[in-house]
Amino acid sequence: MFEFEITAKDTTRARCGSFRTPHGVVETPIFMPVGTAGTVKGITPDQLHAAGAKMILGNTYHLMLRPGAEVVAKLGGLHKLAAWNGPMLTDSGGYQVFSLGHMRKLSEDGVEFQSHIDGSKVMLTPERAVEIQQLLGADVMMQLDECPPPDATHAEVATAVRRSLDWAKRCKTAWASAPPPGATDKPQALFGIQQGGVFRDLRTESGRALVELDLPGYAIGGLSVGEGHQPMCDVLDDIDEIFPKSKPRYLMGVGEPRDILAAVARGVDMFDCVLPTRNGRNAQAFTWHGRVRLRNAKHELDTNPIDENCSCYTCRNYSRGTIRHLAMAREMLGATLVSIHNLHFFADFLQHIRQTIRDKTFAELSEKWMTQMYPAKNDE
Amino acid sequence: MFEFEITAKDTTRARCGSFRTPHGVVETPIFMPVGTAGTVKGITPDQLHAAGAKMILGNTYHLMLRPGAEVVAKLGGLHKLAAWNGPMLTDSGGYQVFSLGHMRKLSEDGVEFQSHIDGSKVMLTPERAVEIQQLLGADVMMQLDECPPPDATHAEVATAVRRSLDWAKRCKTAWASAPPPGATDKPQALFGIQQGGVFRDLRTESGRALVELDLPGYAIGGLSVGEGHQPMCDVLDDIDEIFPKSKPRYLMGVGEPRDILAAVARGVDMFDCVLPTRNGRNAQAFTWHGRVRLRNAKHELDTNPIDENCSCYTCRNYSRGTIRHLAMAREMLGATLVSIHNLHFFADFLQHIRQTIRDKTFAELSEKWMTQMYPAKNDE
Repeated sequence: MFEFEITAKDTTRARCGSFRTPHGVVETPIFMPVGTAGTVKGITPDQLHAAGAKMILGNTYHLMLRPGAEVVAKLGGLHKLAAWNGPMLTDSGGYQVFSLGHMRKLSEDGVEFQSHIDGSKVMLTPERAVEIQQLLGADVMMQLDECPPPDATHAEVATAVRRSLDWAKRCKTAWASAPPPGATDKPQALFGIQQGGVFRDLRTESGRALVELDLPGYAIGGLSVGEGHQPMCDVLDDIDEIFPKSKPRYLMGVGEPRDILAAVARGVDMFDCVLPTRNGRNAQAFTWHGRVRLRNAKHELDTNPIDENCSCYTCRNYSRGTIRHLAMAREMLGATLVSIHNLHFFADFLQHIRQTIRDKTFAELSEKWMTQMYPAKNDE
Repeated sequence: MFEFEITAKDTTRARCGSFRTPHGVVETPIFMPVGTAGTVKGITPDQLHAAGAKMILGNTYHLMLRPGAEVVAKLGGLHKLAAWNGPMLTDSGGYQVFSLGHMRKLSEDGVEFQSHIDGSKVMLTPERAVEIQQLLGADVMMQLDECPPPDATHAEVATAVRRSLDWAKRCKTAWASAPPPGATDKPQALFGIQQGGVFRDLRTESGRALVELDLPGYAIGGLSVGEGHQPMCDVLDDIDEIFPKSKPRYLMGVGEPRDILAAVARGVDMFDCVLPTRNGRNAQAFTWHGRVRLRNAKHELDTNPIDENCSCYTCRNYSRGTIRHLAMAREMLGATLVSIHNLHFFADFLQHIRQTIRDKTFAELSEKWMTQMYPAKNDE
């Protein structure tokens, strides 16, 4: 289980792979929609499948607080809760503890915080993060890591790197031990998370130490937090050297089509982001020709679909004018329809990326797509 | 077009019929989900079809204010806007003017009010109500009527009855004239609306005068506004005498399963109500054994579906525990899932009603369903 096989290589470091999980094989590079609290917001699993999604993500932080990991286990696990039979990944909760939790107390042992929902005190340790994820039962679990703020100094980031590495070891030990009662009976993979901010020496230190743990996959954490496109690319320039070619590499929280293209060219295999659904709720559509802001008055009488070449449910049935109306009237269906289109766009985008890697035209088409999607003035 | 044929009769006054429209034939008695602003809230047309809905309603009041009738026409009409190819009915806007509009000024000519959306002044006359509905293009249009408040005196209701009748005549004249540019090119039916509150003499006067206009169908308006179940039944006791058997009868804004059963037994053919979706958004499910409040803590660990005999998408895929979690987390999907179940319940309920009328077991089973759905203590 969790075999990762490279199926095609490009002239860049881009690669196609297949990643085997207990809930099916996924083709990489892959984009995973985010199902925060057990649902990709506003989208049924049927709609997710129809939009081309193959693997989704659940947020440990949200699920541990509500309904609680033990409750999810008693309801049959996260696959059952989400009514999703395909592969799933859960994060460790660390990122949200650092972005959403109040009154954090960080120690070598773990991190204590106040729930943003009811103010209760919660302790998250590496062992508890694994236990929660065993109760949730996703195919891929993530280690608990410390996410320093984007403006942290080299010394602060170095501390976070070393603590995250210590936590990776403790997560590996917990993962190797007997799972708690109620945990999934299917095998689960554990991925380590590289930290190090934009400091390439720390990134290298973090990555190499993780590789020594010989985990089923490696994630690049702490990027897409405001550092900008080029600093992200600089960090990613090193990953093909740091991580073994035989393991999947997952860039957490990314995201923007331009970042995905840059990361694929540098050897990244997996992505996740809330953009398709968050922007969907704001009536902002992704297309091959940039973003379309559907609340814009110029769409009022537009009988064309969001994208006339798109085959998604939304584009087959609704005009821009109708979607603008639904958005202005704050109808839930508007959010659902634009989310469906965006999810379809991301699945389609990654499918094109995979095809061009196989055709060895990725580098060239990637440039063309960048120009199309991000012209000097890119928003309609 | 708009032929109404009685296909079965019961031992009560209940009847099955088929009603022909330009977008298909519907079997009656029928329940029409409400698509207020061009969408049944949170539900795609595919989900509506799968839930068994055959005919839906649009609200003229909401659509005339946003996006505007002329805009709907330019976007291809309400069927296109709603992406719904089946039969549709639009109300005249009158009811919402009286329940949502501010600063109403009522005259013989019509009613002026302030939009609840942007405060602009709007004038709605019988002629404009028909024109708007021709631009929307639903299969069935409703006359503009005056809806007096539930506590109105006999004299006040008598005035509303006479004004509504005058408006019915003007609507009929407008309907017979050339439609405005941009209107649907398909035939549209016009239904009259009986008013009269709980005063049976006024109900008879209103109904008989409408029948003289020889319209394609007749609605009973101004009920289910707080008068209670028995007073509603008393008014409905007379309709089979007042209205011709050969035309469909539509009880507006109803609703509750017990009211539907009582009205069918008295010869009503059509219903509409927001209950399935409004209660869906509040996590309240309709079942053959009464309502289920899914936010109730007792459902936290319940792995059973809302109704184990229900074949809807929600019941096939989700447990009560999961839906409770989605409701507590205020996830949009929870609202959609319970709405899907409720829409399926209402379609199924009316289908059972039609079957038992054909089997001549309606009176007996109607009693049984009442006891099941409304026991002394009816809420779980």
